[in-house]
Amino acid sequence: MAQASERHVVIVGGGFGGLYAAKALAGEAVRVTLVDRRNHHLFQPLLYQVATGGLNPGDIAAPIRSVLRGQRNTTVLLAEATAVDLAARRLILADGAIDYDHLILAAGATHSYFGQEAWAAHAPGLKSIEDALEIRRRVFSAYERAERETDPAAQAAWLTFVVIGAGATGVEMAGALAEIARHALAREFRRIDPGRARIVLLEGADAVLPPYPEELRAKARAQLVALGVEVRTGSRVTAIDALGVTLASERIDARTVVWAAGVKGEPIARSLGAALDRAGRVRVAPDLTVPGHPEVQVIGDLALLEQDGAPVPGVCPAAIQQGRHAAENVRRALRGQPPAPFRYVDKGSFATIGRGAAVGDVYGRLRLSGVPAWLAWLGIHIFFLIGFRNRAVTLFQWAYSYFTWRRGVRLITGEKSGSPAQG
Amino acid sequence: MAQASERHVVIVGGGFGGLYAAKALAGEAVRVTLVDRRNHHLFQPLLYQVATGGLNPGDIAAPIRSVLRGQRNTTVLLAEATAVDLAARRLILADGAIDYDHLILAAGATHSYFGQEAWAAHAPGLKSIEDALEIRRRVFSAYERAERETDPAAQAAWLTFVVIGAGATGVEMAGALAEIARHALAREFRRIDPGRARIVLLEGADAVLPPYPEELRAKARAQLVALGVEVRTGSRVTAIDALGVTLASERIDARTVVWAAGVKGEPIARSLGAALDRAGRVRVAPDLTVPGHPEVQVIGDLALLEQDGAPVPGVCPAAIQQGRHAAENVRRALRGQPPAPFRYVDKGSFATIGRGAAVGDVYGRLRLSGVPAWLAWLGIHIFFLIGFRNRAVTLFQWAYSYFTWRRGVRLITGEKSGSPAQG
Repeated sequence: MAQASERHVVIVGGGFGGLYAAKALAGEAVRVTLVDRRNHHLFQPLLYQVATGGLNPGDIAAPIRSVLRGQRNTTVLLAEATAVDLAARRLILADGAIDYDHLILAAGATHSYFGQEAWAAHAPGLKSIEDALEIRRRVFSAYERAERETDPAAQAAWLTFVVIGAGATGVEMAGALAEIARHALAREFRRIDPGRARIVLLEGADAVLPPYPEELRAKARAQLVALGVEVRTGSRVTAIDALGVTLASERIDARTVVWAAGVKGEPIARSLGAALDRAGRVRVAPDLTVPGHPEVQVIGDLALLEQDGAPVPGVCPAAIQQGRHAAENVRRALRGQPPAPFRYVDKGSFATIGRGAAVGDVYGRLRLSGVPAWLAWLGIHIFFLIGFRNRAVTLFQWAYSYFTWRRGVRLITGEKSGSPAQG
Repeated sequence: MAQASERHVVIVGGGFGGLYAAKALAGEAVRVTLVDRRNHHLFQPLLYQVATGGLNPGDIAAPIRSVLRGQRNTTVLLAEATAVDLAARRLILADGAIDYDHLILAAGATHSYFGQEAWAAHAPGLKSIEDALEIRRRVFSAYERAERETDPAAQAAWLTFVVIGAGATGVEMAGALAEIARHALAREFRRIDPGRARIVLLEGADAVLPPYPEELRAKARAQLVALGVEVRTGSRVTAIDALGVTLASERIDARTVVWAAGVKGEPIARSLGAALDRAGRVRVAPDLTVPGHPEVQVIGDLALLEQDGAPVPGVCPAAIQQGRHAAENVRRALRGQPPAPFRYVDKGSFATIGRGAAVGDVYGRLRLSGVPAWLAWLGIHIFFLIGFRNRAVTLFQWAYSYFTWRRGVRLITGEKSGSPAQG
């Protein structure tokens, strides 16, 4: 057991950054406390599969406590961290406080509606399991409502699904929604043809997957179109309400809208008094510390670090590398050394569009698309799923979905919570 | 496709009774409409596994639409049936109405707090996926709260779990709660020892599993005690509040209480104007019809039918047999024959207590307990799970849990919904 005299490392957030920082401190002569307001680590890249009925919540989440159970120097606390008191070296919780010697802030990001908070009710984003279940409820309820609707225009609005934002999440959601319409629900309704459903992917920029190379953006777009997705780049949304989306020169009547357009740093960042960018991310020093506070590091989606003229992207591999680096900086401090600069190694990125359809970029050199990209995506995601059970179950469920086109987890639950869009 | 001139069979409820009635009418020259306010069939006997983190909701539920997709004469409607207009032969929905020629009412049962509705907030029952997720949230949150609690008495209350009612559901819940405490959470906390948690099973009658033979009741009790459950028979609850349960001569401080003590028929039964028993069940004729209305049948948990001096029990096999019988009665009506009397064939019943611990009674002759009963229970439940995917995934998850003692689905979600017991 750790001694009370040992230094106390407090980590805020059990996402990839915080979890890998904690794991990298196993066996060190420090006390580690990981604070999260959720009891589970969430594999966010697969959240869209929960939102579209392909996977169960439990398949992509693991109790943080369970992941770290064997690590005797580490305590996991279910608590909401609300602020950092830099001067007192104290983390403020909603119901208490914890003193730290080293702080690793990995609190992540939440949706940003660019100041239009009223849009949130009509266009939920996809960050938590609750978000995913809410979207799942809306998607599958929409087909049920359409089946019972007799007015053709109202029925068409129930059968129109708009995804706003064509980054990886938006592309993946649009692809999955198209597969639901064309395959998963085939033959299940008597009055509507789910295959007639309209899936619209709106993007303000000129291309889907803006950070990808031009060649892969074009391939991703072609694969989306082949799946039956209407891809509308250069489309700026001016309003969202319960009945649809308004563009500069057009109205799309749609009862189901998903927001994948923007994120912002969790508000705890503001308490640092450090410089934030417009998205609420903390501008960290090259060694991940908050300027003037070598004992405080910010990592993952909450950190803004420029490297070679571009920000390090908000993706899992970056968070994992930063988590490990933050732990190394703590070890350096124990040895009396200053923190070392961080360098992100981009091993590539993948986005999946549907069954056998994906694009990927490996080390910036190898560009994959179609089935090879999809298989690589599958392998990488299964490899990174936390915990043996989830890996095997997920593989099995994907194999089942692949061979049958079915989505087994199409439960409509939590109806009592209601939402304006569902009346 | 069915013709409009064909007779219209309306089924209310997609549980075992309604679903098997619908399946038995596949290919008949009738139009079938199955109405349910949920989009999924739920395998209720395994709901306690969701409530205790052993299975995902999607593992024990299947979209009704999907189960009946190949049955072209059948329409599935997601709608809430509120009343029956017997004179007009019309089913009233919350948002419409449907005319029927034959009605099969299989709306099931809900919790009964014996008039103490205020208890519901403090002691949720276990009938729906939402119920199970709420109990799961309370159970795993209680350990988190205990870990952070410094007052010993308050901590003990968070570590006390009371199950009220020792029928099959209560026994299964208590056994699973004991396994969580003794095994699943071992080594995961730093300040509390989950193994010290107190699991109390309260029953007003003199024995656990009252309908079972005396020999099996004693064995079930012994297996519960071996798991560390305090079994308190002959204990009448006089009050339940956010902090615990009051018995005639004792107070048990407990922050988590589960209600498994009573059910009552869904309120739609009242609109029939037929005789109901105290639990709101419809006293049906021996042929399952409502007296004076041969075109209306009531089956499953909503029906009360005495056979050989005892009511047909509210279990899945009885609902399935009644569903098939109701379909046969419809076929008889098409041929101009009167409805035939129903006879329940009791093939036996099983209740599981924990890993390798169960009791079972086969045809009233073969009595099993321990591992053989548990294996039989496992086989029967996997066999009856609706849909291939669920069977295979469930088997895999159980195998995983068996060899590791772990419960992978311990997510605490839906915290915003709140509950008085959680503060």
